[in-house]
Amino acid sequence: MISQTPKPPYYAVIFTSIKSNKDAAYEIMAHRMEGLAKQQEGYLGHESARNEIGITISYWNSLEAIKHWKQNTEHLLAQQYGREKWYVHYKVRICLVEREYEFLNK
Amino acid sequence: MISQTPKPPYYAVIFTSIKSNKDAAYEIMAHRMEGLAKQQEGYLGHESARNEIGITISYWNSLEAIKHWKQNTEHLLAQQYGREKWYVHYKVRICLVEREYEFLNK
Repeated sequence: MISQTPKPPYYAVIFTSIKSNKDAAYEIMAHRMEGLAKQQEGYLGHESARNEIGITISYWNSLEAIKHWKQNTEHLLAQQYGREKWYVHYKVRICLVEREYEFLNK
Repeated sequence: MISQTPKPPYYAVIFTSIKSNKDAAYEIMAHRMEGLAKQQEGYLGHESARNEIGITISYWNSLEAIKHWKQNTEHLLAQQYGREKWYVHYKVRICLVEREYEFLNK
């Protein structure tokens, strides 16, 4: 659930969004994109939650891997649907993860 | 809801967590910490959502601002409670936001 990413540095793409409405097609597409992202070279993991806003963070080993994923044909179509149908507002932030620490209650 | 952060570069702290249980004290503390973070120098905004996992991202103008906030006396107590009572697992990632883009449906 919490991604077991490698030691930094690596990259994070923070996708924060507000959806316009419930749409079954959205859920199918989101699930498909999740599966497709996992198959991409350089994919390291992802974390996601939604209440009023949705936050999805995907982790990648390079900027090139992020660029390839952004330009994936099926993903381009999903992005287009996203802008036309699903999202009122979204923001994408490309980040270099410099440090991390973790707590695990045993 | 989606933070209106300044032009990159700036910093993001991604806090991903799994909680042990519902606890009224947690909600009070989380709300208090949110208010307190906003008063810190260098605070730029935050975004938060929770389903199976919780994701809270806070944005800062420098590593120093992040360090100060981490060491805030009241926040240190909240962190201690977090480890003792509320969290099964959490991960904190300190990131440099290098680029961003946004979509707003009008």
